[in-house]
Amino acid sequence: MTGPEMHDLVRRLYPLCRSITGDGLRRTLDVIDGSIPLKVSEVPTGTKVLDWTIPREWNIRDAYVKDAAGNRVVDFHDNNLHVVGYSVPVEATMSLEELRGRLHTLPGQPDLVPYRTSYYAETWGFCLSQNTLDGLADGPYEVRIDSTLADGHLTYGEHVVQGRSSEEVLISCHVCHPSLANDNLAGVAVAVALAQRLSDPWYTYRFVFAPGTIGAITWLARNRERTDRIRHGLTMACAGDAGTITYKRSRRGDAEIDQVFAYVLKDRPHTILDFSPYGYDERQYCSPGFDLPVGSLTRTPYGSYPEYHTSADNPDFVRPEAMEDTLETLWSAVQVLEGNRRYQNLSPYGEPQLGARGLYGSLGGRSDTKQAQMAMLWVLNLSDGLHSLLDIAERSNLPFQALADAANALRNAGLLKEWVD
Amino acid sequence: MTGPEMHDLVRRLYPLCRSITGDGLRRTLDVIDGSIPLKVSEVPTGTKVLDWTIPREWNIRDAYVKDAAGNRVVDFHDNNLHVVGYSVPVEATMSLEELRGRLHTLPGQPDLVPYRTSYYAETWGFCLSQNTLDGLADGPYEVRIDSTLADGHLTYGEHVVQGRSSEEVLISCHVCHPSLANDNLAGVAVAVALAQRLSDPWYTYRFVFAPGTIGAITWLARNRERTDRIRHGLTMACAGDAGTITYKRSRRGDAEIDQVFAYVLKDRPHTILDFSPYGYDERQYCSPGFDLPVGSLTRTPYGSYPEYHTSADNPDFVRPEAMEDTLETLWSAVQVLEGNRRYQNLSPYGEPQLGARGLYGSLGGRSDTKQAQMAMLWVLNLSDGLHSLLDIAERSNLPFQALADAANALRNAGLLKEWVD
Amino acid sequence: MTGPEMHDLVRRLYPLCRSITGDGLRRTLDVIDGSIPLKVSEVPTGTKVLDWTIPREWNIRDAYVKDAAGNRVVDFHDNNLHVVGYSVPVEATMSLEELRGRLHTLPGQPDLVPYRTSYYAETWGFCLSQNTLDGLADGPYEVRIDSTLADGHLTYGEHVVQGRSSEEVLISCHVCHPSLANDNLAGVAVAVALAQRLSDPWYTYRFVFAPGTIGAITWLARNRERTDRIRHGLTMACAGDAGTITYKRSRRGDAEIDQVFAYVLKDRPHTILDFSPYGYDERQYCSPGFDLPVGSLTRTPYGSYPEYHTSADNPDFVRPEAMEDTLETLWSAVQVLEGNRRYQNLSPYGEPQLGARGLYGSLGGRSDTKQAQMAMLWVLNLSDGLHSLLDIAERSNLPFQALADAANALRNAGLLKEWVD
Repeated sequence: MTGPEMHDLVRRLYPLCRSITGDGLRRTLDVIDGSIPLKVSEVPTGTKVLDWTIPREWNIRDAYVKDAAGNRVVDFHDNNLHVVGYSVPVEATMSLEELRGRLHTLPGQPDLVPYRTSYYAETWGFCLSQNTLDGLADGPYEVRIDSTLADGHLTYGEHVVQGRSSEEVLISCHVCHPSLANDNLAGVAVAVALAQRLSDPWYTYRFVFAPGTIGAITWLARNRERTDRIRHGLTMACAGDAGTITYKRSRRGDAEIDQVFAYVLKDRPHTILDFSPYGYDERQYCSPGFDLPVGSLTRTPYGSYPEYHTSADNPDFVRPEAMEDTLETLWSAVQVLEGNRRYQNLSPYGEPQLGARGLYGSLGGRSDTKQAQMAMLWVLNLSDGLHSLLDIAERSNLPFQALADAANALRNAGLLKEWVD
Repeated sequence: MTGPEMHDLVRRLYPLCRSITGDGLRRTLDVIDGSIPLKVSEVPTGTKVLDWTIPREWNIRDAYVKDAAGNRVVDFHDNNLHVVGYSVPVEATMSLEELRGRLHTLPGQPDLVPYRTSYYAETWGFCLSQNTLDGLADGPYEVRIDSTLADGHLTYGEHVVQGRSSEEVLISCHVCHPSLANDNLAGVAVAVALAQRLSDPWYTYRFVFAPGTIGAITWLARNRERTDRIRHGLTMACAGDAGTITYKRSRRGDAEIDQVFAYVLKDRPHTILDFSPYGYDERQYCSPGFDLPVGSLTRTPYGSYPEYHTSADNPDFVRPEAMEDTLETLWSAVQVLEGNRRYQNLSPYGEPQLGARGLYGSLGGRSDTKQAQMAMLWVLNLSDGLHSLLDIAERSNLPFQALADAANALRNAGLLKEWVD
Repeated sequence: MTGPEMHDLVRRLYPLCRSITGDGLRRTLDVIDGSIPLKVSEVPTGTKVLDWTIPREWNIRDAYVKDAAGNRVVDFHDNNLHVVGYSVPVEATMSLEELRGRLHTLPGQPDLVPYRTSYYAETWGFCLSQNTLDGLADGPYEVRIDSTLADGHLTYGEHVVQGRSSEEVLISCHVCHPSLANDNLAGVAVAVALAQRLSDPWYTYRFVFAPGTIGAITWLARNRERTDRIRHGLTMACAGDAGTITYKRSRRGDAEIDQVFAYVLKDRPHTILDFSPYGYDERQYCSPGFDLPVGSLTRTPYGSYPEYHTSADNPDFVRPEAMEDTLETLWSAVQVLEGNRRYQNLSPYGEPQLGARGLYGSLGGRSDTKQAQMAMLWVLNLSDGLHSLLDIAERSNLPFQALADAANALRNAGLLKEWVD
């Protein structure tokens, strides 16, 4: 999937009115299923999931504030951010004065519409720009939200790329934000592109597209007994802005995924952050009961760009080349993860005679040694079960790929085998 | 106790001729007992204490060097530093030439009288300023030390503030120095002020006022089987000079008391020193057989100010506001110690639903999060028995008090309980 | 052995045509035996040693390239580097064109003759300067190598300085390079000088003079069951150039020998390198099956000086004073190794009364403390079985010798004994 193709996916998903439940979420999973087949789960309202309960399902058809002349001064059909997420239905006529407490703006960014939700406390409201609010007359206004909040389901989707091993890499994207592009349609698009690119991998890759918080909690509740298969994981979001890559470490801080990203990002502009229990669904995966090795990959992190959670986070804010860069960085990390093994030197007493096996130049005395030879010596020297190839790359300062090639050559020569604990 | 009140205590204690035994030491404990009740122990001469033996008790009534005209050119009643501590009695007439070997001065600080003692080798001598010595004629001089060195007792005092726990915090001050104010009457005054301020603490606080070295050794010998109750400790000295706070780590180097002072001193001018087996009675508490978690709190450390162990270390050298600053620093450390607990998250799988428990704002989507909410998330995430609140403060960069408040709120909501090993 | 004496040994060894087998190697061991008695081992061709096999023995009497006029334009008797090591015999007449593939030069250093060998692939060739090659006419040339490659032996020598302990320090020098002075006759000379200087040491010192790679592998194969006696070790090479000392850590990285050299080199210009599985025979000693605590001591390391493996590495390149400096550095390390013990404080509760044992000044109150007293306090405080004297030196910042002296005094006073695990 190229950058423009990922961008096209973002554009198609953008208008859908996603929330933590409802048909906007279902249609989003349908669109993704057009690129990679999804197994979709529906979990009924009222189901207990860990400490939480699946809420009622929310759906919305229309919402507006109409002035005396019948003009929609705030219109859900212009931008679904105009309605506070999970607003209960309302049909009323009221003055601006009465309405004001229901109106949310960003006074510091007067052109922009903010994004607000209220999942767990029943309320209703509208979001609009400060400029629009400033232009409103005293009223009266016809106010209408044509929504339903009723028993139904929470929906999430999974796509699995089966690997040779049953150990899993988890890629998790939140899909509950309505018309916001970088957060998180860009993350979704990059995840879809990765899923398409993977071919006969070692690990099994599980992609989870679920609403934030309650969706991850639901997935964890329903997969509690199989989380030990997850050897590495990432939440993906904000994958398309112009900023540089940010990797946030897992709660463990020294998980293999943390080591891999530190290695892969070494030669690129980047930021690495320590874990904190805020952000995306790494909060749930890294809760102390699970403590999964799940980091978070973004470009500019949540809350750190002015367009964040406003109407300015639209498809124009997201760049094809930035999504490509995120994808390539992720791909590099996947390549290292896939190749990162521990080996056992089968001839550990002294160096084995590489020359006799055709693995080594035969004319001695030259002071220049080739990288491939050094890589073989390093792999042999540190293949004692304590060091992975990535550990050896860090200690030797040789490229990971050179060490992976050396390990292959040595394995073919019968000098190395995979370590068994 | 205010700074001026502490300073008044220093002034009252200053003239007493303290030593490692004797009535000057007893009168010192009497004065302290006027502020906080002391349990006084008397240990007889000859008692074996660890590797040591309680020496004979020393008392002195008068001492002088009188010139031919009958003038006291060196007079114990001017300043008790004039006599070498533990001097045996002497009554003799001798020339300056004969006397010279018994006279101690500070040629580099010609105005000042040095402080000298000889506890464990019988001798006698006088201390005087170099200027006085330079003005002395050839003699003869009448020399008299009216002292006694006889079987008696070593005296020390203890004050205990009973806490809810039987685990103890030890605060130890040496009280053997005669007329020296910063070393250690200032330390005594700050300890007394702390004892008065403590009210229904968690830990039991034990204040030990004992002569240096032999006193601490005696206390350890008589409390050998109960030192395991000491969870944290401090020696206190030099608490009133104009310098900044110095904390010297315990032998362990990573004891909780070391961590607490590193945290409390972060935002104040300070010096932190590694342990060394020299200084005050931390030498004894941190001997390898005991290895107690005892640090040392001073302002300018021993030997590092020119007034140290001279007649210039008088009450004018000690400042009320410096003692107040030492007390407040110590109080901050005590507050952290008292509140520093490890908890168990009772809902460790995923985040518990804080909003449903009234612990969290309900309107989602806002990018600003409040410190109190972050504190709850951090406490929940790291309450796995491995992290104390102070560990969480260090990792989260949140103030300790915010985390303690969060822990309280979470405990009240049934989400947290104290960790039991 | 003085610097000039070591330099004389280098000069005497220089002309011998060493290789990994053969009479040049034997004569080299004979010369060393003139300074320190060697036990010489001969291992037959075909013997299996670890993953390797002892090769045929190579000997050479003459080799030359003669022009049409009968002049030797390349002559083994000028410099034994002119023949590729282990060249098979040849007797032929050929044009320069035919010969060119057999001629090795250093185009970037046109005055110098390179050093080349081919132990494990049968071939023959000549090394010469680029300048000489450029001056050669088209030929024809008479080409002759009067060598033999036949069943025989691999030879190595050992010298042991018996210590009070059966634990060993291994010093290993490669002796397979023909006329190259710094690499490694200088290393041999410094090792010989150390062997002569050692007198009644604690450790047993084993000096191994063996050909590189195959020699160390042979020694390891024949001493496999006794390598656990080796507590510390060094390979020695390049010990006489004008550069500063380089110490390369053992594979373990934190072996006592690594700690000792870090300590000894602290106050000298030096470089410390991490282990890498390339270089001298530390490659074999530090292979993962053995993982011996063997570092490497050189001045400028292999490959890092332009004279390396060329005819410019001749006795003039090696300096007597540089070899002396290497020897003294090594001697300092040996002194620390010899004295580095762990002790048990026999009076660990409180400080023992040093004054009563005559170990401490008796007049208290002085602010200056002597290094010897601090050394005693540190040794007592940290002699808990976890800290060696060198650990104490690092923590206390006191000189190692002061601590060793203190330990002696304390042991004589019955306050300390050697730690038994």
